[in-house]
Amino acid sequence: MPKDRWGMRPVTPEVTVDAIIELPGGRVVLVERRFFPEGWALPGGFVDPGESLARAVRREALEETSLDVEVLSLFHVYSRPWRDPRGDTVTAVYHCRAAGEPLGADDAKQARAFGPGEIPYGSMAFDHAGILRQFFEWRATGAKPSVEE
Amino acid sequence: MPKDRWGMRPVTPEVTVDAIIELPGGRVVLVERRFFPEGWALPGGFVDPGESLARAVRREALEETSLDVEVLSLFHVYSRPWRDPRGDTVTAVYHCRAAGEPLGADDAKQARAFGPGEIPYGSMAFDHAGILRQFFEWRATGAKPSVEE
Repeated sequence: MPKDRWGMRPVTPEVTVDAIIELPGGRVVLVERRFFPEGWALPGGFVDPGESLARAVRREALEETSLDVEVLSLFHVYSRPWRDPRGDTVTAVYHCRAAGEPLGADDAKQARAFGPGEIPYGSMAFDHAGILRQFFEWRATGAKPSVEE
Repeated sequence: MPKDRWGMRPVTPEVTVDAIIELPGGRVVLVERRFFPEGWALPGGFVDPGESLARAVRREALEETSLDVEVLSLFHVYSRPWRDPRGDTVTAVYHCRAAGEPLGADDAKQARAFGPGEIPYGSMAFDHAGILRQFFEWRATGAKPSVEE
């Protein structure tokens, strides 16, 4: 097991959270990233030490979209090695809802609500296009993604 | 956002996996831990860099129980701060099944299969007693734990 340089704590992938925020009318909120890797993405980010995942989701959603979200359920966890070009990250993706209109801030150049037919799948960062497709699949059929994702 | 000492990678909780392994007859496999915190626990451990969570579950289950498990689904993710007395860890708990009888090894002093009425809830490490209660609740009612866990 790899350890850190003190030999005290094991080295594991970093933990992030991502939010699939539904607005009234079935629209979903995406942010345009300010930093590498650029493109549209689910709002989210790294979990802070001492922070639960639900709290991290609410914090990141508020920072990047100015929306006060309600965290409804855990959608899935994604952990394929190199899903994140910056290094190994494991992301827990939460289904959330909010009212109001998003306003981009912090790491987001802009935040926008897209109808299910308007998602910019071709210009999305990380594996977020696939995650969003699997989310709509789950909403339509109740089928969750494979544990191998 | 806290960074590591190179200022390159954010510091987040560490990622672990735990396996709820069902054997024929509805028995569940627990291990008696060799290291702090001692007690009975779900088989599991730290995810290695470059390893997906499903692969980590299969590796840890094999190391600690000698069982070759099939990973059926993600049960839930637990992230309350200080759920782990060693430091912040986030654990993804997977529902698995296996055939055969467990044999403890590696970090496990012993591995044993318990019927639902025989679980040693009073002598379990971490928050694993609560996780297992929520698992049996889900099996009985279909209700998943809260995102605040």
